[in-house]
Formats: sequence, structure tokens, C-alpha cells
Amino acid sequence: MKASRYTIATLKETPADAEVASHQLLIRGGFIRKLASGIYNWLPMGLRVLHKVERIIREEMDASGALEISMPVVQPGELWVESGRWAEYDDGLLLKLKDRHERDFCLGPTHEEVVTDIARTELKSHRQLPINFYQIQTKFRDETRPRFGLLRAREFIMKDAYSFHMNLKSLDETYMAMHRVYSNVLNRMQLEFRPVDADTGAIGGSDSMEFHVLADSGEDTIAFSTESEYAANIEKAEAVAPAKSEAQHLDLEKVATPGAKTIDSVSEHLGVATATTVKTLIVKGTESPLVALIIRGDHQLNPLKAEKMPEVASPLQMAEDTEIVNIIGCAPGSIGPSGLSIPVLADRSAYAMSNFVCGANIDEFHFVNVNWGRDANADAVYDLRDVIEGDPSPDGKGTLVFKKGIEVGHIFQLGEKYSKAMNATVLDENGKAIVMSMGCYGMGVTRLVAAIIEQYHDDKGMKWPTIIAPFQIIIIPINAHKSPQVAEAADDIYKSMRGLGIEVLLDDREGHRPGAKFADAELMGIPHRIVVGERGLKTDTVEYANRQTGESSDLPIEGLETHFRQIIDRELNS
Amino acid sequence: MKASRYTIATLKETPADAEVASHQLLIRGGFIRKLASGIYNWLPMGLRVLHKVERIIREEMDASGALEISMPVVQPGELWVESGRWAEYDDGLLLKLKDRHERDFCLGPTHEEVVTDIARTELKSHRQLPINFYQIQTKFRDETRPRFGLLRAREFIMKDAYSFHMNLKSLDETYMAMHRVYSNVLNRMQLEFRPVDADTGAIGGSDSMEFHVLADSGEDTIAFSTESEYAANIEKAEAVAPAKSEAQHLDLEKVATPGAKTIDSVSEHLGVATATTVKTLIVKGTESPLVALIIRGDHQLNPLKAEKMPEVASPLQMAEDTEIVNIIGCAPGSIGPSGLSIPVLADRSAYAMSNFVCGANIDEFHFVNVNWGRDANADAVYDLRDVIEGDPSPDGKGTLVFKKGIEVGHIFQLGEKYSKAMNATVLDENGKAIVMSMGCYGMGVTRLVAAIIEQYHDDKGMKWPTIIAPFQIIIIPINAHKSPQVAEAADDIYKSMRGLGIEVLLDDREGHRPGAKFADAELMGIPHRIVVGERGLKTDTVEYANRQTGESSDLPIEGLETHFRQIIDRELNS
Repeated sequence: MKASRYTIATLKETPADAEVASHQLLIRGGFIRKLASGIYNWLPMGLRVLHKVERIIREEMDASGALEISMPVVQPGELWVESGRWAEYDDGLLLKLKDRHERDFCLGPTHEEVVTDIARTELKSHRQLPINFYQIQTKFRDETRPRFGLLRAREFIMKDAYSFHMNLKSLDETYMAMHRVYSNVLNRMQLEFRPVDADTGAIGGSDSMEFHVLADSGEDTIAFSTESEYAANIEKAEAVAPAKSEAQHLDLEKVATPGAKTIDSVSEHLGVATATTVKTLIVKGTESPLVALIIRGDHQLNPLKAEKMPEVASPLQMAEDTEIVNIIGCAPGSIGPSGLSIPVLADRSAYAMSNFVCGANIDEFHFVNVNWGRDANADAVYDLRDVIEGDPSPDGKGTLVFKKGIEVGHIFQLGEKYSKAMNATVLDENGKAIVMSMGCYGMGVTRLVAAIIEQYHDDKGMKWPTIIAPFQIIIIPINAHKSPQVAEAADDIYKSMRGLGIEVLLDDREGHRPGAKFADAELMGIPHRIVVGERGLKTDTVEYANRQTGESSDLPIEGLETHFRQIIDRELNS
Repeated sequence: MKASRYTIATLKETPADAEVASHQLLIRGGFIRKLASGIYNWLPMGLRVLHKVERIIREEMDASGALEISMPVVQPGELWVESGRWAEYDDGLLLKLKDRHERDFCLGPTHEEVVTDIARTELKSHRQLPINFYQIQTKFRDETRPRFGLLRAREFIMKDAYSFHMNLKSLDETYMAMHRVYSNVLNRMQLEFRPVDADTGAIGGSDSMEFHVLADSGEDTIAFSTESEYAANIEKAEAVAPAKSEAQHLDLEKVATPGAKTIDSVSEHLGVATATTVKTLIVKGTESPLVALIIRGDHQLNPLKAEKMPEVASPLQMAEDTEIVNIIGCAPGSIGPSGLSIPVLADRSAYAMSNFVCGANIDEFHFVNVNWGRDANADAVYDLRDVIEGDPSPDGKGTLVFKKGIEVGHIFQLGEKYSKAMNATVLDENGKAIVMSMGCYGMGVTRLVAAIIEQYHDDKGMKWPTIIAPFQIIIIPINAHKSPQVAEAADDIYKSMRGLGIEVLLDDREGHRPGAKFADAELMGIPHRIVVGERGLKTDTVEYANRQTGESSDLPIEGLETHFRQIIDRELNS
């Protein structure tokens, strides 16, 4: 491609509303343009990258035996009524509309309803299962506050797949196959990523995994093991039970703590570490009106974990102060598990402590050297807190560290959630109708483009891995308008490279100085740059620079195209 | 692909609402499924065809130098307000919606506004022109009555391109290049088609052409020359001026025509051919309140032509009876050009007549042997009528015949319509801002899939040309469940063909009898069918049948894959 006949739309200024690198660089590099909040045009340079991402995903999905279909953007509301999601889908993210006949439709943010409708119509026999339908398609979520460019857009492209099964074993096989597909896709794009447990459940047998590309700008925090493959969203990571403290039990003391109503002020008042105290949080219960949750002073309650416990009302609700005073007899800030009349649920770490500090259930008094069994009882011991860095990894290998990630994929065992609601059955060997089990597997296609940049950029611009670069090589002739030799040599190299199928951009734009062309090449992140100048031509060489490594060298013109054909082949297959 | 791991979703019954062959066969063949009125799912078999159509279009567009971009489905209403189309676009086909912040958006039925917004932002210099942006993208038109399956759907896929130019000469060049691209695309799909003048204008220099695939089910009627390339929509085809009759002028007679108020009744009453009479139609004028249009008795007024004449009010409005009686003094049915007090506009064919019959402007009286000049005057002579079969071709070669067509493409010189309204300018050589000229070029991608079937089908099903067939070859083993040899031979052929890159479907479905598989293969229109049976294996042969020609033969298994590789290569490049 010759730049003079292409649209290179680079900008010098960073757009004011672009907070993250990918958003800034996609706009500055002329890859995308904002049309409305969270809605973007793809310019030629950006669309080349998007198509390459799509192709890699399509190749890996096809290789797994998944079948590509295409479902509409505009979906009838009645299917969503049937599945029960019309009224309540995700906090108003469903953009509803009416056609000219006043019938309800929505713009599809996801396609479980439509694909289940296809499955219940087209699949009739167990012989047709398992099957995995996928599409690469435009979706719409009416985000309240779209931001970060392609990372949280309203109109975006997803690869979404939906599998159908006779039983959970078959579902599990396809689920693991999709795990491999996602790993292949992200590996081929040379991304540093982690499959992350997206479920509170125990290790193994998980039925939901997120795939995160690691990047400082990520919105999610992921807990990793220092010594194993374990990774989980911190909201979901299990805080394992520590060994019970074996310290000798000291004598219980009751101490006045005037004005000290927080863990920090109590610790300061008593001159002890917060990790030797516990906090007692009073929440609404299911059987009992109130329930006490006991957490170590330096830990944080994890509401998602707490509200899953049978004694705790879901969603989690903190008790009101008046209610606490009425039932317990003291105000929040002086409560503790000792002698408490309501059910006591202790976090595992709190239950492992000995000689700890807690409220005395008398205003402005605390107990010191409290010990479970002797001074207080727990009705149950649960995992109730967020993990922190340094916690042991739940798989028993190493300790946890935190990193930021961008979720680019999510695989999910849906079971019968939709197939049951929409009566999607097939006949088994005996002619009996069986509700199919379902899996769903999403991958953010446009989001991946941004995630790649978050990992591959520097202060000069993007640094595309060759397999997804808009062009593989850029040729910049120096002052070609003054030197017919330079123009001719650049054109010869361009043609011979094209002849070998190399995706090469010849920057023959008039009215742009070499410095501006160099800056554009770096901004757009073309992996290989070749500069053709009069000085080099005297020795039959060109200047070469590698965008990823920053290395540069002079290369002989003779054999240049085969040299790069080999390099690129290696990069495409690495 | 093995059919046991694929979704073959053929149906025996023709859906009740499917009126045309393509709609019936796409549903029956399991290529598409209706999700809602005018909204379809693409099943795996259909999507393969759709992708091939897209690929051919993309290849030809890229080869022409057009640049692919992608614009959103959801467009901000403000751009449509700016262009002036928000309030009035095409009779309510624009589906409008509001986002959660109550801002106006629409689902894009076309993208002139968005692309003009891109052009005015990204294009700055004459050096960047000409440029031609295209996309292959989902569009939505809220049709009142969607029907004919993909031929008039609400959600559909278009290839739409928009070019920008410094002047009309450059626009004309790109317009002609797009003419060639469209011809190439349709030729590669082996379609019988015609580029059709979509403009009333004279021959040559046309600024709008439609591309029609010929098919009896077409909604448009096209007039063709028997001896040249001339083709035009009948509404747009020019009725050329015939030679003036040189018959001797007979004496004018006034005859009573009691009760005869139509051309047919007058002709019958007088015992003359309708072609010797004229009808006088009174319509509203621009300067004069009423204007008379004179058309030969057997011809039909063409309202599109009439309303373009300076004397005639646009849109065309017929005069009311009371107005006619007040001004002319007689009721419709007895009016004629002789002695008429309002402007008289004669159709060319009517003006070439001599000794004709017309109303006498006295109730229930007509004149016979009327002659222009002697008995009546025309203020102007225009082309005002529809062409009829047998008319001379406007290019002077041959006569016109009519055929039905399906419009699959439309190329259009827009000029400055959008670029002026939206102030899309670039700087010329002297630094002066120039409003760009624009062209637009649409091609119905999903509609093409249907149009191909309208040309390529019989009573057994579809008959795909190989280049767009979902699979190139289908292998049907006979009773493979009883014969391991058959199963093995079929599998060997399948594998060796796949090894050569042939797109082959092995129909290994259990529980389907051979007859049902044959019927499915014919319904789905796979070009080449190979049947592997025990009888043939004894002589190392298979049975072959060609879906297009119906020919069949026995072929040796040895070298079968290379034999078909050659045939298919030839078919793909024909």
C-alpha cells in the first residue's frame, strides 16, 4: 500500500477525554474515531488490526470444531421476556426500542436467548450433540459512563459461543476445549495473560473462568500464586484457613477505651497491632434478625462471600444503629463476640487467633486476651474476607500477589439456566426429551485490540506484534521528491516485498518531512522500518530499525525481500 | 466437514409465508431462519455462502484501491438533523431510538452522514483525493411489510462505498471504476445481470446506474434493447421521438360520443384503434393553475417524467373535476387539445400523429381527423410516457423488450448534496477550501445471496455456482453402518480431498436413508456429488452427479481428488 493513496490520520495532540494508553494511541494513530460517546468509527489502519484479531479467533474456533453462525443485532423482546431477563437485565444496559408497529425489540448485548431459540428449533436428537455455535458480531450495551475507548464502549464486537450438551461431562469437555482455544488465541497474539477463577468455589471443577490480559491500566485486580498457576479475581479468591494459634491463653482483661470506636483508635489506645484485634460487624440475618460477623482487625469483609452464607440475608445489609443498641445493648464500636446473644459467624483467620482484642459489648470498653472457647463462641466459621497480598495461595503452593488485569474472555458453564426456562430439549437414545446443558464463551474482539496496546506500547506509540500489526514493514524514502534514485530504489523494494506477499506500506506522502514520517511510523507501531536514503544507496544499503527492540542496523538491498520474508514467517509462527 | 458434526437443518415443508424461490429454499435448505419479521439468523450452511459473497466483493473493492473502514450500526441523530434527513427519511424507514440519557440515535439504513463527517474531519488536502471508503456492514430499514426473505429484509448486510473528489471529472473516473467492480463481482458469481440507467437523462453521461440480476421474480421491470447494451428501468427509459406522420390531412369532423368517456369506449364507439386517439390529462401547473398533457390513447403517462417538466407542478397532482369544468367548460372524458385555453404539453408520440381522435371540449362530443397546427397547438413537446415493448431503443439500436430484475447494486454521483450541507471541504493547491464532490456505491450483500438462488435453482433446490457454494463436493456413503469398506473408502476420499484444500462435506449422518441424503444434497445445491457404494467399490469406482447439468457418470477412485481439484480450480477461475 502506498501512503499517498491511503488514509493516514495521525494526530499530534492527545484527546482530552482519553485516560488510558490504548484509547490515546488508537485515536492519535488514526485507528479509530469517536462518533458518539462509546461509539467509534474504524479507520482503514485500525480495521486491518481488527480483522487480524478476528481471523485468529475464527481460525482457532473453527479448528476446535465450533460452527460459525450469525445472529441479528436487533432481537425481539419476547425472547427476553421468556428467559426472564427483559425487566431486569444488568442495570438498564439493555437498549430497548420499538419498531413502527410498536413491537418491543432490543439491541443485543448478548445472545443466549436467540441461540437457545435456534437450538430448541434446530436440534432434535442426541446425535446432534455436543455442538458449539459461535459468531463474531456487533453488540450494544448502553453503559452509563462509557470510557477508556474500546475497553468500555457501548457498540463493540464480541466473539460469543454457546455450546449444547446431553450432560455435564460433555459440557465439561467443551468447556476445557474452549479454555485451550482462548489460551491459543492469546498466545498467538503474544499476550501475557492469566486464566482466572471467576467463582468462589473450591479449586478445580470451577464452572467459570475469566481470561485477563495483564496491564497496569486494568480495571480488575487479580490474585496470583507466587509458585503455581493459581489466579483469581480478588473478590473471588479464597482466603484459606490458617493454622490455629497455639499461644498460651493469657488472662482476660476488661479495659476502658474512652472515645475509641474504630479498630485504628482502639489499637492505638492499647498500643497493639491491628492484626491482634477483631472487628464485629452486625448484619441482617435470615433466621435471626441480626448476625455478627467477626473479622480480624486488619482484614476487610468480602460482601459477596458473606451473603452466600445461609445465616446471612442476601443481598448483604448492615444493621441500623438503633437496632444494634436495642438488641445488643451497646453502640457499634464496642461490640465483640464474647457473650453475644445473636449468632456469631467467625472468619477463618479471626477464628485462628488467640489472646485477641475485641469490644466488651459495653459502651467504650474492650476485652484484651480474648480466646475462643474460653471467652467467646462462634456458631460457624467461614471464609468471609478479601484476600490480601502475602496470604497463602488456596492451592497450597506459594503465596498471593496482586496484579491488574483486563478481562478479554469469559467461559461459563451455564447448565440449564436458559435451556430450562426456554424448554430447549432433544430426544435421547430412548426417545425421551432431555433438557440440554449449555456453556457460553465470550471474547471481546474490539477490547482485545485495546488490550494488546496496553501491553505493547511506549511513549512514542504502539508496538504491534507482527501477527496483528496493520502493516508488517514500512518503507520511508528520504527526500524522494529531490532524488529520483531514492524514489526508484524505495519503489523497487516495495514492489519486490509485495511480490513475496509482505504487507508493506510505502510512505510516499508529499509534503511530510522525514522526521514526521518517522514519528508516524513509531506512533502506528509498524514492527519493521526501512529507510531509503542517498547515503545508503552509495553502498547499496538501507537503514533498518525494529520497533519492538529498538535495534537498528544497515542492511544490504540485495536479498532484502527474502530476508524479511523469513523474519516475518518466523514471527507469524512464533 | 463431517455432516455428523455439522448442523444440517433441512426442512421438508415450504414455509407458508415464503412467496419466492430464494426465500423458500434458504429456509428449507437450513441456510437462514426467521427470528422476527424481516430479521434472520444465519445458520452455518448459509453463513458459508454469505462469507464467500463478502469475500468476492472485498477482493474486487480492494483491487480498485478502495479503503475498507467500519462505521457503527448506531448513529447519532444530530448528524441526520445536519443533513436534513432526520425528519423525512424515506417514509419512516429510519428506526429511531433514545439511549439512557434520552439522546437521539437511529439504526443506520445508510451511512452518508457518518462518512461525510469522517471525510470533513480526516481529509484536509487535495493531495488526499480522490479517495473511496467502503464497508461491509449490518444495516436496518424498518420496512412496513418485509417480505421475500432476504430480498426485502429489515436487518441486512450492505457493501456501501463513498468516494470524495476535487471535481466532477475525478468523480466520473471513480464512478466508472465502480461500474467495472460491480460487473466483475457479478461476473465472478456467474450471474446474468444488466447495468441499468436509473436516470431519466439522455444516453451517456448518466449519473446513476442500477445493477439488476435478471429473474422472473424480480420486483423491477427493465427495458432492454434487442440489439445493444442499452437497459433502463421502465420508469426511467426514454421514449424516443417517432418520425412525424406524413399522412394527408383529412377533414375535421365533430361527432357525438354519448356515454363514451374513456379511450376504450370512444374507440369502440367510433370503430377505431386506440392508437389513433389521444387522451388529455389535466394536471396542476406551476405558472398556470392547470396544464393539459396529451398522450396517445394506448400509452401510459409517466408521472416521474411529467413532474420534471417546468410547466408541471411537482409532485404530480391531477386536477379536480370541478376545477376542470370551471376552467375548460366540460367534464373529463371529452377534453382535447383543440382550442384549449390552458397550456398544452404533448408527448412526443402524440405529437407525431395525424388525423387523430380527441375530445371536443364539449360534453359527449369528440373530434375525428384532428391534426397538429391546423386544429390544435402544443406549447411544448416532451417525453411524457412509459415506454412499451417494441418501442425503438433510445440509443438507436434495435427495439425494447422487457424483463424482470432484482436490483443488487446502485452507483450514484451525489455531487455536493451531503458535502455542502455538512461543509466537507479540503484545501486546493492554492490553499482555498473546496467543497468535495461525492459518489456513493451500494451493493446488497445478503440480497445477492437470494438473487443468486433466484437465477440458480430448480424444483429440487438450489444450484450454487461453485465459487459461492457452501461446499464444493458432497460425499454420500451408501449404508456405511453396514459396510466398513464403504465407510473407509468414503473417509479416504474425504481426507484426500481435504488434503488438497477442497471444501468437502461427508454426509456420515446416522439414521438418514440414502434417499434423504440425496434430496438434502440437491436441496442444498452442492455442485458435485459423489456416491460411494459397495457395487462401485468392486470396480474401484464411485458414482458422480453434477448438480448444475444433471449429468452423471462412474469415476475411478484413483486420482479422484486431483481430478476434482482441477475441475474446481477451473470453475473458480471461470
